[in-house]
Amino acid sequence: MTHPTAIERLADWICDLQHSDIPAAVRAIATNCLLDTIGVAFAGAATAVARTARAIAMDAGSRGDAAVVGSPQLFSAPAAAFVNGASAHALDFDDNCYAGFVHGSAAIAPAAIAVAQKRNASGKDLLTAFIVGSECEYAVGAATNSILYDQGWWTTGVLGPIGACAAAAWLLKLDRKQTASALGLAVAGTGGLKACFGTDAKALMAGRAAEAGVVAALLAAQGAGGPHDAFEHWNGFTGLFNHGEFNVAMIAQLGSGSPWFMESPGVDLKRIPLCLSSHAAVDAAMAIVTRHDIQVDDIAEIVCDVPQIVFANLIYNKPATRQEAQFSMPFAVAVSLLYGTVELAHLDSAVLQEPRIVALMKRIKMTVGPRWSLAGACEAAPEGANVLIKAAGRDWVEGFQAYARGAAQCPMRQEEIDGKFMKCIEAGNDSNGALLLSRLKSLDMLPSVRDLLATA
Amino acid sequence: MTHPTAIERLADWICDLQHSDIPAAVRAIATNCLLDTIGVAFAGAATAVARTARAIAMDAGSRGDAAVVGSPQLFSAPAAAFVNGASAHALDFDDNCYAGFVHGSAAIAPAAIAVAQKRNASGKDLLTAFIVGSECEYAVGAATNSILYDQGWWTTGVLGPIGACAAAAWLLKLDRKQTASALGLAVAGTGGLKACFGTDAKALMAGRAAEAGVVAALLAAQGAGGPHDAFEHWNGFTGLFNHGEFNVAMIAQLGSGSPWFMESPGVDLKRIPLCLSSHAAVDAAMAIVTRHDIQVDDIAEIVCDVPQIVFANLIYNKPATRQEAQFSMPFAVAVSLLYGTVELAHLDSAVLQEPRIVALMKRIKMTVGPRWSLAGACEAAPEGANVLIKAAGRDWVEGFQAYARGAAQCPMRQEEIDGKFMKCIEAGNDSNGALLLSRLKSLDMLPSVRDLLATA
Repeated sequence: MTHPTAIERLADWICDLQHSDIPAAVRAIATNCLLDTIGVAFAGAATAVARTARAIAMDAGSRGDAAVVGSPQLFSAPAAAFVNGASAHALDFDDNCYAGFVHGSAAIAPAAIAVAQKRNASGKDLLTAFIVGSECEYAVGAATNSILYDQGWWTTGVLGPIGACAAAAWLLKLDRKQTASALGLAVAGTGGLKACFGTDAKALMAGRAAEAGVVAALLAAQGAGGPHDAFEHWNGFTGLFNHGEFNVAMIAQLGSGSPWFMESPGVDLKRIPLCLSSHAAVDAAMAIVTRHDIQVDDIAEIVCDVPQIVFANLIYNKPATRQEAQFSMPFAVAVSLLYGTVELAHLDSAVLQEPRIVALMKRIKMTVGPRWSLAGACEAAPEGANVLIKAAGRDWVEGFQAYARGAAQCPMRQEEIDGKFMKCIEAGNDSNGALLLSRLKSLDMLPSVRDLLATA
Repeated sequence: MTHPTAIERLADWICDLQHSDIPAAVRAIATNCLLDTIGVAFAGAATAVARTARAIAMDAGSRGDAAVVGSPQLFSAPAAAFVNGASAHALDFDDNCYAGFVHGSAAIAPAAIAVAQKRNASGKDLLTAFIVGSECEYAVGAATNSILYDQGWWTTGVLGPIGACAAAAWLLKLDRKQTASALGLAVAGTGGLKACFGTDAKALMAGRAAEAGVVAALLAAQGAGGPHDAFEHWNGFTGLFNHGEFNVAMIAQLGSGSPWFMESPGVDLKRIPLCLSSHAAVDAAMAIVTRHDIQVDDIAEIVCDVPQIVFANLIYNKPATRQEAQFSMPFAVAVSLLYGTVELAHLDSAVLQEPRIVALMKRIKMTVGPRWSLAGACEAAPEGANVLIKAAGRDWVEGFQAYARGAAQCPMRQEEIDGKFMKCIEAGNDSNGALLLSRLKSLDMLPSVRDLLATA
């Protein structure tokens, strides 16, 4: 065991952190992440998989102080974290972070909200706890150098308990030793296979990650010990999950004066409810059509030149279901051009069969051109796209987009973020999104989070 | 994906299995495993880590039909599985199986009991479900060819959800597709690092494994889907946990007419509450002393010649705590020779400081001699021992023991199993072990398991 271990460093940072240490810019990013996660959880709460998660919490007779989206019932903190985590990831419309290639907020926010409601904390404390969880999870994610994700581990399942636990530990005011034990318990039991993709297990495991973090912190608060060397141990995280590599400099970066992980690499919000890999091509295609005033019906061919990872992610050229449509470049580009955007309502089998959509999709191709083999090309635009469009009677025109709109490098305008939130609340059939939105936007001033999720 | 997948084969076997398919010999083994697990859970329920697990279930406000040892309160099935799993493994006195090198029953039995109580099932159904869970877990364990354990994964955490889920799925009468989804959910989210050794995380993770299996089965019963190819998937169990190997012949063995896994390799019960690695040496030393009528005070030196794995497991020559004493060859042999056996009461700091114990421990050495390099030696006696004893005024005498008494190859007498049970119940401060024992010994005839764990 090295001294201090990575977990002890994280615990020191967590226990020392106060709201006043957090720059206003980081709080602003975090507020949008929280707001966006709650919005997509409301939309996700209407899905079958979220209903399943709620049924399990009901069946377990869970009672407590923590609210879930989609039900008036209050649950225990672990159960609420599970249900809201599953809801937040049910539509794959929640945020991502390149530090770990992870869906972060979907596990961290539900854990932070559940424990904050259990403790009847203030909005300021909830926001601080969410930032604590996010920074810890992204620091560990950055320390993995992406090996974790490339190996086939589902980072949201594996790293989620760490962020959820850090947020919960901060809210529970655990001391250094308890915080380290909580993180040790979370890391020692973590897991998750990408084999979950395409099944309900993906959303449910986001919920289990949120729950696992909360349970680890509650166990440590009761006195349970966990391995403080769970990263460095010869049978620990580094060897078993990450091929022996762990870039501890990323942990040391916490509190060092370097940019916060939520600033750099930052957190990417999704503008449209599709795999992030399609977003940059959609943005590029939309920009070309506007700039060159091309009529959609005149389009003869669209070629999306993308990195290998994008090509590998978007495997459905002729999607038949919502989930397949979310992983289809032709669908993403066709719907965007014909309807001006992609909304949750478009993820419908009727839309998939519309003759104009079907006809346009046939004219959209993906390729991995030589530009992506140039040094630094993929690093500069990891899910970027160069799009070429040929319209009847015109020359080919092209446009390049390195990052999707919504990414940290290319953020959405605040009214777009707020607009996505309101549409998600409507999709969840809830009536008073405006009240919830205003409450979330001034979270720092809210004296109690007890009624945070109530839309009535 | 191959057709059928390993999970689909398991699901077929689970759904087809009926009580009448199970040979009487397997039911007899299972009855002793269940009885033994419940006994050690009663003793374990008095430990701090088990109290912690109960506190978490209380804190979560869990309510249901499932009993836990150590409390009169009834909990939901997942919560009861968690609490009883942690209690069953808290003293490391529960059974092991070489198919997977796994503590099996500590996760499977609590899951089966919790779901059986939720369903108000019969004793026959509980026993059948426990056998279903055990056979599935050991089949998967055998399919790993021990690579899983050797890699540093904690098999009890990784395989436990599979056995717990299979038992729960059978009791919930899930159909083939639901059963496969349940197993997929369990495998997709599993995990656990041996970094937990020596901390509370070890017992708590046995509980989480039991809970995870129950939750997976309940989710599938509600309609959730899981990856049916979670073993074969390119980002699945086989590649990520087991170096790409998976001996699917072990899965095909279920229902094939081959011996049941509970018969071969069988399940090893622990006769004494110490790491299994010390047991064969203890048995050998005890036999030598009896056979040659050696007085303990005359012993000048004891040498335990053991396989490398035993030497590596028993790292404390001068133990200072209960947990260290459980991993100490000098302690195991000294207490056995001086007191005739090792009981839970001996795992006490006062015993560790007794002058006769301290003096005798100094005369006990471990070595890894050349015999263990001979072909087949470790396979024939994986945790065996050749013990040499030199007493004052006598020649060296020696004795060999391939397997510990209690192992499947060398079972304890029934009165020893029952006696261990009664001592465990007493250690848990419960009064009426005899009633519980008689109920468990005729489990097949019990019309309802609702009051199974009640000792009043």
